[in-house]
Amino acid sequence: MEPITLKDIANALNISVTTVSKALRGYIDVGASTKKAVLKMAKEMNYTPNTVAVNLRTQQTKTIGVIIPSIVHQFFSNVMDGIINEAEKHGYLVITLQSNEKLEFEKKQLHLLQQKRVDGILMSLSNETYQFDHINELLQNKMPIVLFDKIGKLVKCSKVIIDDQSAAYNAVSYLIEKGYKRIAHFRGSLQPQNSIDRFLGYKKALIDHGIKFDSSLVYLCDNNDDFNDGYTNAKKLVNEHQDVDAIFAITDVVAVGILKYFNENNIKIPEDIAVFGFSDWFMSSVVTPTLSSVVQPGFEMGRKATEILIEEIKLEHKKIPYSFQKIVLPTSLVIRKST
Amino acid sequence: MEPITLKDIANALNISVTTVSKALRGYIDVGASTKKAVLKMAKEMNYTPNTVAVNLRTQQTKTIGVIIPSIVHQFFSNVMDGIINEAEKHGYLVITLQSNEKLEFEKKQLHLLQQKRVDGILMSLSNETYQFDHINELLQNKMPIVLFDKIGKLVKCSKVIIDDQSAAYNAVSYLIEKGYKRIAHFRGSLQPQNSIDRFLGYKKALIDHGIKFDSSLVYLCDNNDDFNDGYTNAKKLVNEHQDVDAIFAITDVVAVGILKYFNENNIKIPEDIAVFGFSDWFMSSVVTPTLSSVVQPGFEMGRKATEILIEEIKLEHKKIPYSFQKIVLPTSLVIRKST
Repeated sequence: MEPITLKDIANALNISVTTVSKALRGYIDVGASTKKAVLKMAKEMNYTPNTVAVNLRTQQTKTIGVIIPSIVHQFFSNVMDGIINEAEKHGYLVITLQSNEKLEFEKKQLHLLQQKRVDGILMSLSNETYQFDHINELLQNKMPIVLFDKIGKLVKCSKVIIDDQSAAYNAVSYLIEKGYKRIAHFRGSLQPQNSIDRFLGYKKALIDHGIKFDSSLVYLCDNNDDFNDGYTNAKKLVNEHQDVDAIFAITDVVAVGILKYFNENNIKIPEDIAVFGFSDWFMSSVVTPTLSSVVQPGFEMGRKATEILIEEIKLEHKKIPYSFQKIVLPTSLVIRKST
Repeated sequence: MEPITLKDIANALNISVTTVSKALRGYIDVGASTKKAVLKMAKEMNYTPNTVAVNLRTQQTKTIGVIIPSIVHQFFSNVMDGIINEAEKHGYLVITLQSNEKLEFEKKQLHLLQQKRVDGILMSLSNETYQFDHINELLQNKMPIVLFDKIGKLVKCSKVIIDDQSAAYNAVSYLIEKGYKRIAHFRGSLQPQNSIDRFLGYKKALIDHGIKFDSSLVYLCDNNDDFNDGYTNAKKLVNEHQDVDAIFAITDVVAVGILKYFNENNIKIPEDIAVFGFSDWFMSSVVTPTLSSVVQPGFEMGRKATEILIEEIKLEHKKIPYSFQKIVLPTSLVIRKST
C-alpha cells in the first residue's frame, strides 16, 4: 500500500506541504477556507497520519509486546482478552508472541520486541526459564516489563499473580474436610513457580491437618496441560496405590484425563476417588462428572498487568521514578460433582 | 526506555556518527580495528538498530494486523497459533484485535491498523458485517487483506475458508445413512456466510436423500458459541417435536449444551436422539457421550492465510500484479459416541 502523504494533498490543492500540515493540526494561521479544503481532500484521499513518522519524534510506538507460552490454552486466551481490551482503552496495540514453553524462543522473541521498539512488555515465563539474564538486561535498559502468572521471583519488576500456594492449600483442605484421607497430587513440571507453589500448598494442607506427606503419592505431569499425562498417571496410580481416595490435579486438563481413565474403567467419581482440578476451564462444567476446580481470574490478570505496564510506560517516559507492584489476585473454589 | 543511538556509540568512542553507521553496516572504508571497536561498544551498550527509522525509509513495518471476533474461542486461538507461527518464520510480527462480533468495533480496529501502517491485514468478519465499505476502501488503497473463515463473498481479495456447505452436507448425510430420519438443525446467526452455508448443506443433504425439509426443525442460536442456546433450544425441541431423532448443531459448544440438557433429563444419546457438532473442540473428546463433529483445520487456516498475505505484501511492494486466491481447506468427520 502506498500511503497518501501530506505532499500528495499539497499537490492536489496546489499549496505547500507546510500549509497542509498546519491545516491538519488546526494551526490558527491557516485560513478557514484552506483548512476546510485540506480536510475535505484529506478525507477524499483517505489520508491517515503517518504514525511511524510521529513515533520517531516521540520515541513511542504505542505498542506493547506480549510473550506467552501458548495461545491455544483457555487460561492464556482469557488473559489475552484482558490484555487486548485494556491496551485498546489506552490507545495501545498488542503484538503477541509464543515461547512454546522454550527458553530459547522466549529469548529470541524478547529480542524481536526490543528491535520493534515496543513501549513495554508483558510476559508469562516458559517452563524452561530458570535464569533471567535476558529479562534483567532489558529492565536495566529501562524497558518496562510486567510478569504475570508464571513469574521469576528473582526478577525485579512488577508482577501480577494469583496466590497459587493458598489456592492449592484451600482446594486440598476442602478435600480433607470432606473426609478424604489419602490424597494424591498430580503435579506440574519442576521449574515454574506456580507448579512449585501448588505442590507446596498441597503439602502444607496435609501437614496442617495432621496427614503425613507421602512423596510416592506425587505424580509428575511434565507438560502441565497434557490430557494424556492425567490419563496415564491415573492408570499408574490405580496400580500402585489402591488406597488413594482423592487426587488434586495441577490443571483441569490433567484432571479431565484422570476422569476419562476412571470413567473407562468403571472407577466411580467421587465415590471411589474424588478429583479436584485447577483453572476452571469451560469444559470442566460440562464433563461427566462435572469437575471441582480453582477459579483463576485470567481476564482480570491480563487487564491488571496491562494497566500497570501502561502506568509504568508513562512514568518512564516522563522520567518519574516508580516502584514495582506485586498484585495477588484472589481465587475461589467452585465445587461440582467430582468431589 | 531510552534507546541507545548511533550518537551514543559515537560519543563513547569519540568518532563520528557516520563512521559508527558505516561500521555497523560493514562498509569497507572503515578500518578493521574501528569496526571491531564499534561492534564491541554496540554490544556493551545493548544497541539495537532503530527499526522505526529503518521502516520510515522502506515504508514497511514488518507487522501484520489480525482482526478476529474473539480470541477466547478454541477455533480462533488455533488460527492465531497458525498465524503467529507463520508470520514469525517470515520475520513479521502480529498485532491482534478483537471485533467482539460488532461491525462498529471491526471498522474502528481496521482504522487503527491502517494508522499503525501495518503491511497487511488478516480478518475474520463479525456476525454483524453485511456491508463491506470499510474493507473495500482499504483494498482500493492497495492494502493487502486476506479474509478467512467468516468471509464476505462480495469482497474482492484472497480468502481461506473451509467448504462449510460440503462439511455440513457430509455430517447430515452420515446421520441419514445411519438411519436417522427426523433431523433438526440448530443453526447459527443469520448473517455470517459460514452459518448460512452450514444451513444450506443441512438442507441439501435432506433433499438429496429424499427427506422433506421442515423449517420448524430449524432452531436459531443467535450466538454461534453459546452453550445456553444449545441448552434452551434442546428443551424447546423436546417439547415441540417428540419425533426428532437427531440434531446437527452449528458448533460443538451448542452441541455440548444439548448434551447437558439431555443428560440432565435422562434422554439417551444416541439411542433417543443423536447429536452432531462442528469444529471438534478439545472438550468434544472428553464430554459424555463423546461428540461426533466436523474437524476444522484452524492452525492450517491461520498458517495458509498468513502465507498468502505475506506473498501479496511482497508483490505489492515490488509493484508486481497478482491475482487473488481462494483456498478451500479440506474438512473431515470424526465419529464418536453421540451418533
